[in-house]
Amino acid sequence: MNEQNRRILLASRPDGKPTTDNFKFDTVPVAEPGDGQVLLKILYLSLDPYMRGRMSAAKSYAAPLEVGDVMEGATVGRVIQSRDPAFAEGDIVLSHSGWQNFAIADGATLRKLDPSVAPVSTALGVLGMTGFTAYAGLLTIGQPKPGETVVVAAASGAVGSAVGQIARIKGARAVGIAGGADKCAFLRDELGFDVAVDHRAPDFADQLKAACPQGIDVYFENVGGHVWEAVFPLLNEFARVPVCGLIAQYNDTAPPAGPDRLPGFMREVLSRSLNVRGFIQREFVDQRPAFYKEMAAWIASGQVRYREDIVEGLDAAPEAFMGLLEGRNFGKLVVRIGE
Amino acid sequence: MNEQNRRILLASRPDGKPTTDNFKFDTVPVAEPGDGQVLLKILYLSLDPYMRGRMSAAKSYAAPLEVGDVMEGATVGRVIQSRDPAFAEGDIVLSHSGWQNFAIADGATLRKLDPSVAPVSTALGVLGMTGFTAYAGLLTIGQPKPGETVVVAAASGAVGSAVGQIARIKGARAVGIAGGADKCAFLRDELGFDVAVDHRAPDFADQLKAACPQGIDVYFENVGGHVWEAVFPLLNEFARVPVCGLIAQYNDTAPPAGPDRLPGFMREVLSRSLNVRGFIQREFVDQRPAFYKEMAAWIASGQVRYREDIVEGLDAAPEAFMGLLEGRNFGKLVVRIGE
Repeated sequence: MNEQNRRILLASRPDGKPTTDNFKFDTVPVAEPGDGQVLLKILYLSLDPYMRGRMSAAKSYAAPLEVGDVMEGATVGRVIQSRDPAFAEGDIVLSHSGWQNFAIADGATLRKLDPSVAPVSTALGVLGMTGFTAYAGLLTIGQPKPGETVVVAAASGAVGSAVGQIARIKGARAVGIAGGADKCAFLRDELGFDVAVDHRAPDFADQLKAACPQGIDVYFENVGGHVWEAVFPLLNEFARVPVCGLIAQYNDTAPPAGPDRLPGFMREVLSRSLNVRGFIQREFVDQRPAFYKEMAAWIASGQVRYREDIVEGLDAAPEAFMGLLEGRNFGKLVVRIGE
Repeated sequence: MNEQNRRILLASRPDGKPTTDNFKFDTVPVAEPGDGQVLLKILYLSLDPYMRGRMSAAKSYAAPLEVGDVMEGATVGRVIQSRDPAFAEGDIVLSHSGWQNFAIADGATLRKLDPSVAPVSTALGVLGMTGFTAYAGLLTIGQPKPGETVVVAAASGAVGSAVGQIARIKGARAVGIAGGADKCAFLRDELGFDVAVDHRAPDFADQLKAACPQGIDVYFENVGGHVWEAVFPLLNEFARVPVCGLIAQYNDTAPPAGPDRLPGFMREVLSRSLNVRGFIQREFVDQRPAFYKEMAAWIASGQVRYREDIVEGLDAAPEAFMGLLEGRNFGKLVVRIGE
């Protein structure tokens, strides 16, 4: 290989919102795969809110990136050289290769994709980690019952759109929260949500209350901030709150001013018997086979629809990622890196 | 009956800590039981922290008392007149008759007690609602595994002492938090807790950290306040927090000053995959038969011990209740009303 590999590295840790200065491009020669490895040309890169956490030094459910590391991320790639007998040149695989054009990967870490089931980019979204996050968090923690009200924030996003549609499959009422009229129309008209509420509306809290006349039984939390504040008073006794993300808070650098709402929050957890549970999809790994089967069937039948927001070229990744943290994407954000 | 019934009523709602002014004594003639009812002479009255909530107007998991109502509470009584064929004069029963000397009760609401199993006052404590609260909350929500660390606050109290002992039966390490050297010695020497930590010690947070070198897997929350603040940083990934009570907060009248810790709390719920769940024992009602059987066996074998703090006479109830909210009792607080 004489090709060069262009990569995006973590140049420095963000203080608040990430800026272009936090990213650094470099170019290195493409490496050779060792025994049991393959060389991948990356086709698609997934951009996801969790990456903001990896850019910080704080311990979370995964170790932070080090400054100088290639930015992390799930990818779809084509095998262009294989030293693992399980993979042939031309195979399309799911890998975790990060923000770059080429990557070496251990064959054991890859999942082969079947392009006849769905476009391979969906392995980064509705048929991948984001779809599985929605599926496992909603069904295991949320446990929606027929007739209950399920509210999901960031509802036009990769996780939220699947949450609402699965809630409806289970017989619940799905109320989606999104930013702007276009996204709300999409939730109602394309995805079949029962109601969509625009969190940018000045009377957002009143609109949400009107949308949930029986209160809220499940709130799938992706957002935090003022959306959470509007949801919280509407939670019914025994409500379940899977906490999947807090995108509105990721760029916060200090706790907000008082009063301190934590004691009051705990009092409501007690008096309303609320269940608030943070989770990460890998704790439900044993449900993945069932997920792949059910979700593929729901997509085939049209019961679950998805929307991708595809950005062209690796160089566009930092800007697209910064937009993701502000809700500027519309659908699962994916960068097309190669063909 | 020519006897008079002395009662204690809610005279006014407390603003912060209850005072003697919030209680009013009166005396009325003892009533006659109707069809299907019995007349009870009350022997024991249970005093429990949840009663503080009932004195306020705020909606909680049960309706508040009205001003002028008899103060609520679980009781043990002797049937002195019966118009329900299921009960004979002399039967000892568990009822919910409140703060008074005599009561009429529907037979259908009573549970007959067997004085040969254990002293009948235990139906208000370790073999009653408080023991069941410990059992159901710890086993269903806490799910302690062998070798894990279970921390319980108010550990010498009615619920906490059962939590720690059940945790040890399940093979976990039990760390108790209590106020004062006497209570801590009791936890270690009488109840077999692995460690006891005094929350009044100036270096309480450091002591708790030293007592939990592997972090905390289950925290059974009875208290809130500064105990919760010391516990929270020690919670391990995937820790479970059954929220049973918040006695340190019950008298608060306004949220404390800032900063607002709620966003930071939610961030930790997410990044450590914490499960924080408020509960009330009645949601686990189907586990009661198993509880009565297991707990009676544990008491018989000496695996669970209990301590009662018995106060003499109905008139002492308000003062004893105010002391309970400040941790002045030592063991399950019960008022002996009759013999």
